[in-house]
Order: sequence, then structure tokens, then C-alpha cells
Amino acid sequence: MERKIIDWLKQTFPARYPLSVGIGDDAAVIDIDARQIVVTTDAVVEGVHFEIAKHSWRRIGHKAVAVNLSDLAAMGAVPLAIVITLVLPQGTVLNQVKELYAGISNLCQRWRIAIAGGDTNFSLGPLTISITALGILEPNRTPWLCRGAQIGDDILVSGSLGGSILGKHMDFEPRCDLAREIASKFQVHAATDVSDGLLFNLGVILRSSGCGALLELGEIPISPAAREMADHRSSLDHALYDGEDFELVVVVSPEQAARMLADEHLSNSLTRIGRTREQPGILGRQADRSEKILEVRGYSHGQSGELP
Amino acid sequence: MERKIIDWLKQTFPARYPLSVGIGDDAAVIDIDARQIVVTTDAVVEGVHFEIAKHSWRRIGHKAVAVNLSDLAAMGAVPLAIVITLVLPQGTVLNQVKELYAGISNLCQRWRIAIAGGDTNFSLGPLTISITALGILEPNRTPWLCRGAQIGDDILVSGSLGGSILGKHMDFEPRCDLAREIASKFQVHAATDVSDGLLFNLGVILRSSGCGALLELGEIPISPAAREMADHRSSLDHALYDGEDFELVVVVSPEQAARMLADEHLSNSLTRIGRTREQPGILGRQADRSEKILEVRGYSHGQSGELP
Repeated sequence: MERKIIDWLKQTFPARYPLSVGIGDDAAVIDIDARQIVVTTDAVVEGVHFEIAKHSWRRIGHKAVAVNLSDLAAMGAVPLAIVITLVLPQGTVLNQVKELYAGISNLCQRWRIAIAGGDTNFSLGPLTISITALGILEPNRTPWLCRGAQIGDDILVSGSLGGSILGKHMDFEPRCDLAREIASKFQVHAATDVSDGLLFNLGVILRSSGCGALLELGEIPISPAAREMADHRSSLDHALYDGEDFELVVVVSPEQAARMLADEHLSNSLTRIGRTREQPGILGRQADRSEKILEVRGYSHGQSGELP
Repeated sequence: MERKIIDWLKQTFPARYPLSVGIGDDAAVIDIDARQIVVTTDAVVEGVHFEIAKHSWRRIGHKAVAVNLSDLAAMGAVPLAIVITLVLPQGTVLNQVKELYAGISNLCQRWRIAIAGGDTNFSLGPLTISITALGILEPNRTPWLCRGAQIGDDILVSGSLGGSILGKHMDFEPRCDLAREIASKFQVHAATDVSDGLLFNLGVILRSSGCGALLELGEIPISPAAREMADHRSSLDHALYDGEDFELVVVVSPEQAARMLADEHLSNSLTRIGRTREQPGILGRQADRSEKILEVRGYSHGQSGELP
């Protein structure tokens, strides 16, 4: 349904002044004089993105901010400020709210992000935390979009992938530092974060850019959690399709990629996992050089909410 | 509880770079180079701010944006863009979402406000729409805050007050045009919008500014709805205490007030209702010149959510 809504919104409300990047990317960009403000919003909802019986209020607060900072990182933007809307279940006590804010503020303090306000409501429904994050591009930079990948570009991914449900989906570190470092040193053609699964999010880049990709399956960085979860689904399958890894995917020229991979000062590891090509779709090449077409599907919350 | 949270937040996270106005006013202000970006967030929740059985999705969308635009108007800011987070009940159909967006976009189109993105989720809980609105101050203007009222200032209010529950609380027009006109022509010392009741919101201005007020009770503009509702509570009582009128309260020098009241080009009527004074609290003067101390309390949603 979210995709249907986005498609309909894009048709109905085309981007216009003051938006230089409109609906459908990781974030929107608003031009103000010579500066570019980046804005994104994401909510986390009890029973969908976390379980109140299982996860502490502090971890829930952390996740609520981190998913938004990940979107800013995926645009190459520096975070500035957040605003927070809470919808609290009846019976919430102040100490729980303080714990939630402890998780929120811990991340904010690290990057000197201002908490610029909020709204607190009560309902009979699930705990919901909706955060809007504002970032800014350094002067004379262009935002990293999903469109912009060129044929023959290298595809890099940060960290390792898969099995985030075992814990990383609550505790991940948004790649703000890495994004800032890359933006300051390298030219990025396209980027996104892995929120719905590597192949799903890479697929958005490829479709938006009008190209396809060949992935080296032996090069995909598989997380220990993905190996731990391997069962009827392989660890590679987890790495390709699991959601909420919140790693960065960046698409750059081979020359830039070589320099990035050789850079020892980056905050996180980067792995080259493949290359874009003219033919649409995503082809996977296995260690034995055999190739197979990879299905582009992703992890999606709340499937039961799919509309008729 | 919201006040407790705001107080605790103000102590714990004092405003700092890049916030020039922090938590607790109608909106926050972020300085970006020479410009001032104003940001506010407000959610409307089924069962608290509207009833899904009674109000159309279009009116709900209208209200969800309008409450945010009212906060921008109360800062003297021009609206730029909004982002929208929806938490939809299971069973929502696309046409309902389109109706909601029709209500949202109608207001956005009028002021050329960009819809800069959003997030859509499903839950078992109530329909919740959380909107963040971004505005900007015209160059060389200062934001209108709750603090800043001076002793001997005049207190003006737009429109008429009370009884908004009969319909205005869903359909009100945020005072964006009036705010822009006032900001372009006059010096405002302090301002806010009537979200929780005239006396409550005026009380915030007075406490923040370190003064009190004398109100001329015969001058309070009482709405037809307040007269219709008058029963065991007088129409004046409704005008003083009912929430969600979303009229502007502005505090200005008597000289500015005289010019404002004489200005025939303003979009909405303004009424002078009293004057600030040194003694704290709000005194009401009746037509017979007798005076009484007015209780500063307000309308509050979700009282049942008050914390232990």
C-alpha cells in the first residue's frame, strides 16, 4: 500500500518550488537561498517495528531516531534537528517516557542534533513514535538520490547484512559518520539505505536510474546474525532480502570505488558487491561463475494491511 | 503530562546550536546561515481530536495540517513544506487515504506548501496523522515568541472564540494570511494561537513574559457557536476556556495596536481584549467595572492519560 500511496502522491502532487527533490526518495530537499535542507519522517509502531514486552523503552527511542538518521545519511546530509510526536498508550508513566528520551538523546548528543520540539498524545492504541529529522547538505554538494547510477558503476555496501531481527534492527548505528566522510571525499552517483532488504532497495536505485546490475554473490558481506539464522533460508538469502539492516548502498564510478576501498580512514567497512549494467533486473553470479536472475522483493512490515 | 514532559525536556536538553528558539514555544527556530527555519509538529488522533464515525477523512486531513499551520502563523512564519506520517487502522482503503490527502492538499495548494514526503504504517490502533510543518521567517524578521510581552501592551485576538467543538475545530482556517500581513507591517512583542483556550494560552504568554493582564470581559469576541452552547456555562465562559479555536493572540504596543485596529486591509478581524500589567495573573473587568480574578485553566485532550 505504501508504494501505491507514493505513486499516487507523485502523480497528484508533483515536486515544485521549494522542493528540489520531491516525494519518493529517502528524503526530500528544500532549497533555501543557497542551502539545501533535507527532511525525512519515519514512525515506529508497537507490534510492527518493536514489541513493548521485549524491547526496552530506551532501545525503542534509539530505533525511532536511528531510522530517520539513516535516511539523512542515505542523502549525504548532515543531521541538524529532530522533532518528535509521541502517541502513548494509556497507563504510560513518566519514567518510561524518560527512558524513551534517553535512547533518543543518546544518539542526538553524539552528533549534536537538536531536539526541536514535539507533541505528546495518549490513545487506546499502540505506542507510536513519529520523528521528523532535518539535515543539511554541506555547501556546494548535491544530494545523493536513488536516480543517478550510471552503467558500469560499482555498487558498494557498508557493514554486513542479514538477520537484523536478532537485534541489530533495534540497536543499529545509522551511518552518519560514514556518509559525511564519503560526501567530503568522493563523488557518489546514487545512494540509499537498506531498510527493506538489499535487493529491494538496490532495485529502487536501478529502476530509478534506468539500469540493472550484476552482483557477485560471493562478495555479499553476510553478517554473523544471518549465519546464525540460516536454516531453510540460506545466510545469503537473509543477507539479500532481510530488512532493517540500515547499511548504506552507494553507487560510484569504478575509479572512485577503488579509492574508497583503499581509504583506511572511513568509519565503516565498505564492500564492492557488483556493478551496474544496461540490462534491467539483478543478475547474481555465483562462485562457480554460473548466473541466475535474482527476484527483487523485499521485507515489508504490516503485509496484513495491504489494501484491497 | 505534556507540560511535565516539556518541563523535563527543557531542563534536560537546553536549546543550543543550531536552535535559536527551543522547546516549549509554538514552534522551534533553526538558524541556517542568515535565514530562520521554523519547525513544528502536531498529531491528531482518532478518539482524541476527531471521531472517525462523525468526521469525513477529508475534514480529518484538513485539521491535521491546519493545526500545524496555526503554529507557524503564531510564530509569524510563512509555511514552506510539510511531511506526513500516517498510522492507518487495518482495513483502511486507498480511497479513504485519497480523501485524507484531498483535505491536506487543499490547504497546501492555497499557500503553495510542498508535501515533502511521508511515511505510511498500519496498526491495530486508532487512525493517527502526525504532521511536521516547516516555515521560514522573511529576512530580517524575528520570530514571535510567547515571551516578550511588555507591561502596558495591548492584547489583540483574531476572529471570535468559543464553542469550536460544534464544528470549527475541524474546519478552521489557520491564520497564515493574517500573520503574514501583521509581520510585514507591525512590530509584535509576543504571540500564540488559541489551541487550549484563550486564558490558558494567554497565560503562557504572561508567565513567559513575567507579567499579568487585565481583560475587558465585555470586549471578548464571542462566537455564535459559544452562544449556541451557552447553558450551565455562559457563552463568555466558552469563549475564555474552550480549546481549538486556533485564533491568533498578539501582544503589541498600544501605538501599534491602534494602527492595527485601523487597518482595513487585514484578512481577519482583530479585537482588543485587554492590556498587560505588572501584577501576575489575569483580572477580568466586567461591564459594571467590577473586577474578578480569572482562573487560568485550559481545555486539555486526553485528561484520562494524566500520569500518576
